[in-house]
Amino acid sequence: MAKYGYLGLGIMGRGMALNLVNAGHDVVVWNRSSEKCDELVAAGATKGSSPAEVVASCDITFACVSDPEASKALVFGENGVLEGVAGGKAYVDMSTIDPGTAQTIGAAIVEAGGRYLEAPVSGSKGPAENGTLILLAAGERALFDEAEPAFSVMGKKSVFLGEVGQGARMKLVVNMIMGTMMTAFTEGMTLAEKANLSTQDLLDVLDAGAMSNPMFRGKGPLMQKESFATAFPLKHAQKDMRLALLLGDELAHGMPTVAASNEVFKKARNKGLGDSDFSSVYLASKD
Amino acid sequence: MAKYGYLGLGIMGRGMALNLVNAGHDVVVWNRSSEKCDELVAAGATKGSSPAEVVASCDITFACVSDPEASKALVFGENGVLEGVAGGKAYVDMSTIDPGTAQTIGAAIVEAGGRYLEAPVSGSKGPAENGTLILLAAGERALFDEAEPAFSVMGKKSVFLGEVGQGARMKLVVNMIMGTMMTAFTEGMTLAEKANLSTQDLLDVLDAGAMSNPMFRGKGPLMQKESFATAFPLKHAQKDMRLALLLGDELAHGMPTVAASNEVFKKARNKGLGDSDFSSVYLASKD
Amino acid sequence: MAKYGYLGLGIMGRGMALNLVNAGHDVVVWNRSSEKCDELVAAGATKGSSPAEVVASCDITFACVSDPEASKALVFGENGVLEGVAGGKAYVDMSTIDPGTAQTIGAAIVEAGGRYLEAPVSGSKGPAENGTLILLAAGERALFDEAEPAFSVMGKKSVFLGEVGQGARMKLVVNMIMGTMMTAFTEGMTLAEKANLSTQDLLDVLDAGAMSNPMFRGKGPLMQKESFATAFPLKHAQKDMRLALLLGDELAHGMPTVAASNEVFKKARNKGLGDSDFSSVYLASKD
Amino acid sequence: MAKYGYLGLGIMGRGMALNLVNAGHDVVVWNRSSEKCDELVAAGATKGSSPAEVVASCDITFACVSDPEASKALVFGENGVLEGVAGGKAYVDMSTIDPGTAQTIGAAIVEAGGRYLEAPVSGSKGPAENGTLILLAAGERALFDEAEPAFSVMGKKSVFLGEVGQGARMKLVVNMIMGTMMTAFTEGMTLAEKANLSTQDLLDVLDAGAMSNPMFRGKGPLMQKESFATAFPLKHAQKDMRLALLLGDELAHGMPTVAASNEVFKKARNKGLGDSDFSSVYLASKD
Repeated sequence: MAKYGYLGLGIMGRGMALNLVNAGHDVVVWNRSSEKCDELVAAGATKGSSPAEVVASCDITFACVSDPEASKALVFGENGVLEGVAGGKAYVDMSTIDPGTAQTIGAAIVEAGGRYLEAPVSGSKGPAENGTLILLAAGERALFDEAEPAFSVMGKKSVFLGEVGQGARMKLVVNMIMGTMMTAFTEGMTLAEKANLSTQDLLDVLDAGAMSNPMFRGKGPLMQKESFATAFPLKHAQKDMRLALLLGDELAHGMPTVAASNEVFKKARNKGLGDSDFSSVYLASKD
Repeated sequence: MAKYGYLGLGIMGRGMALNLVNAGHDVVVWNRSSEKCDELVAAGATKGSSPAEVVASCDITFACVSDPEASKALVFGENGVLEGVAGGKAYVDMSTIDPGTAQTIGAAIVEAGGRYLEAPVSGSKGPAENGTLILLAAGERALFDEAEPAFSVMGKKSVFLGEVGQGARMKLVVNMIMGTMMTAFTEGMTLAEKANLSTQDLLDVLDAGAMSNPMFRGKGPLMQKESFATAFPLKHAQKDMRLALLLGDELAHGMPTVAASNEVFKKARNKGLGDSDFSSVYLASKD
Repeated sequence: MAKYGYLGLGIMGRGMALNLVNAGHDVVVWNRSSEKCDELVAAGATKGSSPAEVVASCDITFACVSDPEASKALVFGENGVLEGVAGGKAYVDMSTIDPGTAQTIGAAIVEAGGRYLEAPVSGSKGPAENGTLILLAAGERALFDEAEPAFSVMGKKSVFLGEVGQGARMKLVVNMIMGTMMTAFTEGMTLAEKANLSTQDLLDVLDAGAMSNPMFRGKGPLMQKESFATAFPLKHAQKDMRLALLLGDELAHGMPTVAASNEVFKKARNKGLGDSDFSSVYLASKD
Repeated sequence: MAKYGYLGLGIMGRGMALNLVNAGHDVVVWNRSSEKCDELVAAGATKGSSPAEVVASCDITFACVSDPEASKALVFGENGVLEGVAGGKAYVDMSTIDPGTAQTIGAAIVEAGGRYLEAPVSGSKGPAENGTLILLAAGERALFDEAEPAFSVMGKKSVFLGEVGQGARMKLVVNMIMGTMMTAFTEGMTLAEKANLSTQDLLDVLDAGAMSNPMFRGKGPLMQKESFATAFPLKHAQKDMRLALLLGDELAHGMPTVAASNEVFKKARNKGLGDSDFSSVYLASKD
């Protein structure tokens, strides 16, 4: 049985690492502020001393940190991942980063003698804890297959998408559809209100038909209460839409519906909703 | 047990009337070209001689015809519904008509001594045959309750939405969300293609997550084959978006995402796709 | 020298009729509330007793009333225009009406033995008074030529556009470009502000270059003061954009930029700006 | 009288440098491929040996190169501008570069003991030759005043906009209004065509009214002929709109009309029009 490392025990990483431990795997964990390791150690994990040491001592090391800068610091910093990968160690970065950063990191890992996979996830805190994430992997195909026992514990589905960068790109496409579906929904909810239709009736009708989906089902009742506790911050949702539109720009691909939706999200940020849940774009649709 | 009438045996009406007959109800049918009644009579229905006669001889008469003009002709024409409603006969119009036409018809029926409900449906041919339509009813509340035994056979869900016109309005809101979700989806599918991502991977990822819905699941594989056999004509989908935007106009409600989507549908009409399935808007997104 | 009639002495009609009188023409005027005729009579006009009488006693009668309903009432009402046109009298409707209404009125006039021209104008109060309107004429070509001496007094330019309805359509195209230029402008003005650029510098730079135009020059300084006294009501500007988009809809012509702009105007109406000048859409762009 | 340097003799720089020489100024010129200096030398300029040498030997050195990369190479390269600025030499970069690059260059120049102004221009080849550019300057105010004798020869108007970066930002705002006005115009031209209105009539009417501007006047007749010889490449126009939208993104400012227009330009690029004049977006509006 493979020995796994896990670097970064934030909201997402904590859930994934715990699932690995609870499934009976031998796991070495590391986090910048080390007290976050305690819960994992109590559950059966071992505490590592640095990213380099964890990577060198494990077969496959996973990581999930907050953004491209943190991701690069983890790899290129002192006692970083890069110092431990020689001799064919495998590194799987599950952070949400842009295609360019993924390519930079992947190339460096491989050049240093290591193996690389990007595997950003679709899903937030709940799915990370429940092991129901969707993993968007790209890079070395053989490593994807080897990591399957770990992936199957962390997520309900993992797909292999080709060369490094395609994982990041798929995530942008998915999140851009999500953001646009969200404003389609909020424009409908607010029109219903102005037309004196019951939004509950609207939710019921939508849920009974071909558009029925967990997002409308989950966010609709929260909109009715104007309850926007953050599951996915609006500013991050808008950032992904911006990046998706820039990907379209690169490819000379016009996407008018997405672009219109993106501007609504900007208006929502201007209302101070950047840190609220992305469903709070509802309040901008109301204007 | 109530005696039911059914006027209009087209694609939608035929399925609904058959379901009433097959459920054991006593049903009198009528259609402008009378040979369409044969199948129903063979199944156990009685053939009526005119709308007026059907309405006068039944407790509740349902109708489903193609558009507002046909709907008005059925009611106000010679031997039309209006001539049969005196004495409290009930008429339920399930055609897709605009709020104004529904109000005109409803007021005339009531003035002539009848009872009225509009009940446009969400769903197309398949759900009409399977009895899984969603009924958007508005008008007389008591009649809605009395019609429940019939509604439960024709649809899987029926909601009562208030005064006449609200059924039509709810349908516009629902269809406008549907059209906008569709271009959000086609812009994502075409971006995936241009970014060398597999659309099958995209469909799989979408179907595993919070956006999973029957429409993406059903239309996605057809888009991959560019197979656009008409379930819901694109020109009708666009017409509903136009009317929803005009409803917003009436209410001073800006809906930028919907408006952007609507223009994509117009571009699709300009490509000659008006009579294809509304998912063929994919071809306009590809440009 | 031809004898002219003028029906309707509101903001626009008053200026045009005065210009005809001041140019030395023999003019018979009529207005629903007759005291508005006094100023014209003082200037040298004759007061008529009804639309029918004016039309019957003049060679060419012009009219400018507020909307399609007023326009139809003037023609089809008791002692209306229609009763005076027999025997080849000419009627030129300068009101802003939709293509359908223009066609209805034109057909009725011609059938009654009269001659017809629609001639909606581009320009507001100032140009009506200064004789610098632009006349968008359509209908009978010979009548357009005969009316030239009057047109040249009321406007600085008149164009003949073909069959009845084309005048109304041209006005929609012009006003839709105007509305969209306006939100392009307000989005730039508000971006400049948020970027700590001086809007005065922006106005100066715009005015020195290829985009230099009287509208930016006139409305820009008023925006800086948030002074939105009504020259052209926002709700009318938005109505024209709606009608232009519906004309596009009829012709299967997608216009995404115009549609986006139109929704901004709706948002402005929702802020209570419908009766303010259309440049107050600036306040919606600021959100 | 000050001694001027000019670096970069491309389409724009050549015209500006010639105007300086023809106005009687003492000018030292330099260009990467040195044969471009010949024409200037024939007109009275002196040929410099490197950017560093030109800067060190002149009071104020102007530069105009193609993009941010060329701009940085000119300053930071071997024998570059930076090596010549010590002792208070002045450098004015007239290239179109993003705010960040302008700030990077400006800071380096000042740290090396030099003085800096960014001064991107509004206007293309013709205005560069005729001396009718508009200069959007920012940086050191005193230098702006000192450069006035040169600016007044190169342009018809120069404005001082504050700290470095504001010149670049103003240019983005101006070009974004321009691009959006352009699609407002092309959507109107194509609607006119589909409605069987004469585009010549439309151009005449627009030119007679409040929207009258040199851009419509110049580009309209070229659109009628579908003649799109490049004055300003469509891909550059779209790039400026992208950057303006990203500036809005930074400032949480939604600009729906601009965003819609930007997507039309992307569609035009997808049709292969990137290198045509930006007015060829007309062909995308036609779809």
